[in-house]
Amino acid sequence: MRIGIIGYGNLGRGAEAAISHADDMELVAVFTRRDPETLKIRTESAEVCSFDSIADFAGKIDVMILCAGSATDLPEMTPEVASEFNVVDSFDTHARIPEHFADVDRACKAAGTTALISAGWDPGLFSIARVIGASVLPEGKDYTFWGRGVSQGHSDAVRRINGVLDARQYTNPVPEAMDRVRAGEDPELTTREKHTREVYVVAEDGADKALIEKEIKVMPNYFSDYDTTVTFITQEEMDRDHAGLPHGGSVIRSGRTGYDLEMHDTYEFKLDLDSNPMFTGSILVAYARAIKKMNDTGHTGCKTVLDIPPALLSPLSSEDLRAHML
Amino acid sequence: MRIGIIGYGNLGRGAEAAISHADDMELVAVFTRRDPETLKIRTESAEVCSFDSIADFAGKIDVMILCAGSATDLPEMTPEVASEFNVVDSFDTHARIPEHFADVDRACKAAGTTALISAGWDPGLFSIARVIGASVLPEGKDYTFWGRGVSQGHSDAVRRINGVLDARQYTNPVPEAMDRVRAGEDPELTTREKHTREVYVVAEDGADKALIEKEIKVMPNYFSDYDTTVTFITQEEMDRDHAGLPHGGSVIRSGRTGYDLEMHDTYEFKLDLDSNPMFTGSILVAYARAIKKMNDTGHTGCKTVLDIPPALLSPLSSEDLRAHML
Repeated sequence: MRIGIIGYGNLGRGAEAAISHADDMELVAVFTRRDPETLKIRTESAEVCSFDSIADFAGKIDVMILCAGSATDLPEMTPEVASEFNVVDSFDTHARIPEHFADVDRACKAAGTTALISAGWDPGLFSIARVIGASVLPEGKDYTFWGRGVSQGHSDAVRRINGVLDARQYTNPVPEAMDRVRAGEDPELTTREKHTREVYVVAEDGADKALIEKEIKVMPNYFSDYDTTVTFITQEEMDRDHAGLPHGGSVIRSGRTGYDLEMHDTYEFKLDLDSNPMFTGSILVAYARAIKKMNDTGHTGCKTVLDIPPALLSPLSSEDLRAHML
Repeated sequence: MRIGIIGYGNLGRGAEAAISHADDMELVAVFTRRDPETLKIRTESAEVCSFDSIADFAGKIDVMILCAGSATDLPEMTPEVASEFNVVDSFDTHARIPEHFADVDRACKAAGTTALISAGWDPGLFSIARVIGASVLPEGKDYTFWGRGVSQGHSDAVRRINGVLDARQYTNPVPEAMDRVRAGEDPELTTREKHTREVYVVAEDGADKALIEKEIKVMPNYFSDYDTTVTFITQEEMDRDHAGLPHGGSVIRSGRTGYDLEMHDTYEFKLDLDSNPMFTGSILVAYARAIKKMNDTGHTGCKTVLDIPPALLSPLSSEDLRAHML
């Protein structure tokens, strides 16, 4: 299976690493909008090419993995690339998924290609857990908790405050809230009751730390609805203790079965990740395998993780899966 | 969607209860090998019929849910019923799945029907977790822990001992073993290190309890490889404290990502069930929905849970799922 990667940030590197561990895949090229000469990748056998040259690879790449941003890049890029290649993207702006789906589906149908949008873990594996959970426990409630993990958007928001040199924000689930859900209390939880936010800040010399802390805690959308702790540290401490991008979370379906709904069940899917982009890259690669198989069997158009039979993600045959994994 | 249930033990009752909570489904009939006159079901609008009369329901039932035993019933029954109806079964003899699949697939292909075998939670939802986990974390190790839950096979084995009037066996996962797995130690665990067995026994008056306890603990396959505790209780205590059939467990994939596999991730799917048969019945009903949709779109033959796109389990449309559940 011949794979191309478009974009070489953290996610592109994650996809590259995952391909290096997949025996049935070969990374053909990494495409970049930067000067290809300036980009050094890990895979010696793969080329580094300009994004403008992707058309030259028609017929030489089975699936393109798009590792670009959801805000502005993917809405344009995925339909464009899908008009020539099978593609997988990680579009994660939940509210705009229907529109993105329609755009990509149109491109695929015209070209006879297959696309998978919104792969990753949320949207992605968490979506699968939500849909299966709600289907097998229709009488119930869904809860999604995130963390402990670094939110890059929140970290960026803190960095924009005057006097802040560097910042890292962790989202933490509230353990008591998760325990109440698992115990079948079906609580109505406010934003504040579900998660806390933990911020580490490197401030400029002489900055007003009390003012910075206040500005963080009152920031609407990002922090004002949460209990937030702010800790000032040195740049050395930041580099030493907060260089990683861990993340994770849980989807919990608390449901009831029995004729009179007298039985309680808890269904939980949980991830605990040292590196969010490495794991997300690995998911995109597994879905690239599925999309190649779907296209090979005549299933064209745009798909989401909800449309993919689990067997297609595996390098094993259906016979082997039935014999050993079922 | 018109559903039939074959067999009315605990699992058949679970399927009936689940259908009663599904707005898009109607229970048409329950089929039994007993005298239909002697069987009282909960659903007033449904018939109780003899298993021998199923052919009369051709065209009147969209999917038959088979709630019979894997040891002797399903190997015969599923191919037989699949030659006339779409079917879902919960065949759970892992080693014989390939053979059962072949038998059912042959019947389906000849009749143009669709079957799903081995639905439930293990095999079933746990199989999905294993396959997706291994696909997104190919460098890693799988662990399945069961419990705390009642094993009916082990309870039956104890009941066959001389002097035992009643028995209930709980399988418990060893918390320390699970913690080691979650921490990324990738331990090699023996049978004894993964689970303990907890047995409650009602003995005959005057029975030799020490001998019963010893007979349990040395029983090969069932108990000899486990740390087993045996507690003698009264029939009243048994009826009061051990009437339920709770179960559950966890599938954990401990894997590594990153070019040099420097990152550790834990992927976990966990169930905690008040009633094993009620939940399993609910799963069979969700898969009945999927199998009807597959047959409607021309997908005939035998399937397993690994072949079913998650979206098909839901009563929601693909559009609604994309807009609200992704």
